[in-house]
Amino acid sequence: MINLYLFRHGIAAERSDKIHDAERPLIPKGQRRTRLVARRLQQIGLRFDVIMTSPFLRAQQTADILHEEGLGDLPIPLPPLAPTGEFARGMAWLQDWQQNHTTESNVVFVGHQPNLGHWAEQLLWGKVGDRLIVKKAGIIGIKLGNLSHSETNNELFLLTSPKWLP
Amino acid sequence: MINLYLFRHGIAAERSDKIHDAERPLIPKGQRRTRLVARRLQQIGLRFDVIMTSPFLRAQQTADILHEEGLGDLPIPLPPLAPTGEFARGMAWLQDWQQNHTTESNVVFVGHQPNLGHWAEQLLWGKVGDRLIVKKAGIIGIKLGNLSHSETNNELFLLTSPKWLP
Repeated sequence: MINLYLFRHGIAAERSDKIHDAERPLIPKGQRRTRLVARRLQQIGLRFDVIMTSPFLRAQQTADILHEEGLGDLPIPLPPLAPTGEFARGMAWLQDWQQNHTTESNVVFVGHQPNLGHWAEQLLWGKVGDRLIVKKAGIIGIKLGNLSHSETNNELFLLTSPKWLP
Repeated sequence: MINLYLFRHGIAAERSDKIHDAERPLIPKGQRRTRLVARRLQQIGLRFDVIMTSPFLRAQQTADILHEEGLGDLPIPLPPLAPTGEFARGMAWLQDWQQNHTTESNVVFVGHQPNLGHWAEQLLWGKVGDRLIVKKAGIIGIKLGNLSHSETNNELFLLTSPKWLP
């Protein structure tokens, strides 16, 4: 059984012609808020068995903060988590993880909007409706059923943001 | 604009032949956890413009705790929030509220499972799939669009439980 957490990167530098989108870093406020959220999750007792991250800098830096605050080992880049990544390839990774882990595990995907919200909607309702508000450094928690069944029974247990994790 | 909060009652006395379901009270642990959640919400700065509650005792006691902790005025019973209540009648109340409040307002419905989760799913995806886990003293937050339009654009911004509001 997998508890899948979808974690959106913190506040990053604005888009600009001077910097490639993949290289935009977190700004200090984004680092600070992400760290506060990570500490709160650590206090609550959350531990990730694996931290997977979009290869984009703002996501990697977010994932690094989760690691630094004791939530899990060093993050591993997963290309499908990039903004152009495909849901199917992310699912393939999860199915593979599920086959190799029979006990309950906590997996976090650090990535971007609107992808994370869309993935959550696909897992829960099989379609995308843009009905989930996922703030920066916000987090979604989904209890995954057996992903190799066509009728999976995934359930949402958490959708929150820095405001609600003071 | 309405921020609709759906708040599930705290842990109550077990079902029994000796007590009518409508009269089951919160047990001390349920009171305590509900109060901790209410205090946390108060610290975060949440205030309800109105607290509507199921007439069942465990919901009324939960609503009273929200009031006692400074989250809003005295709770008002709303029969559609009872376990047998109908979604359409709850919606009618919300539409009426929306017509009379043009500024942003925070409304909380204190009630029961599976109703609250089903209402949320109907508001978000127009159908019920039992895809939301709503724990006792757990809370759902939905930003409501214009309810008199057939195509409403409601969005989920919060789904949490006592564990995540320490």
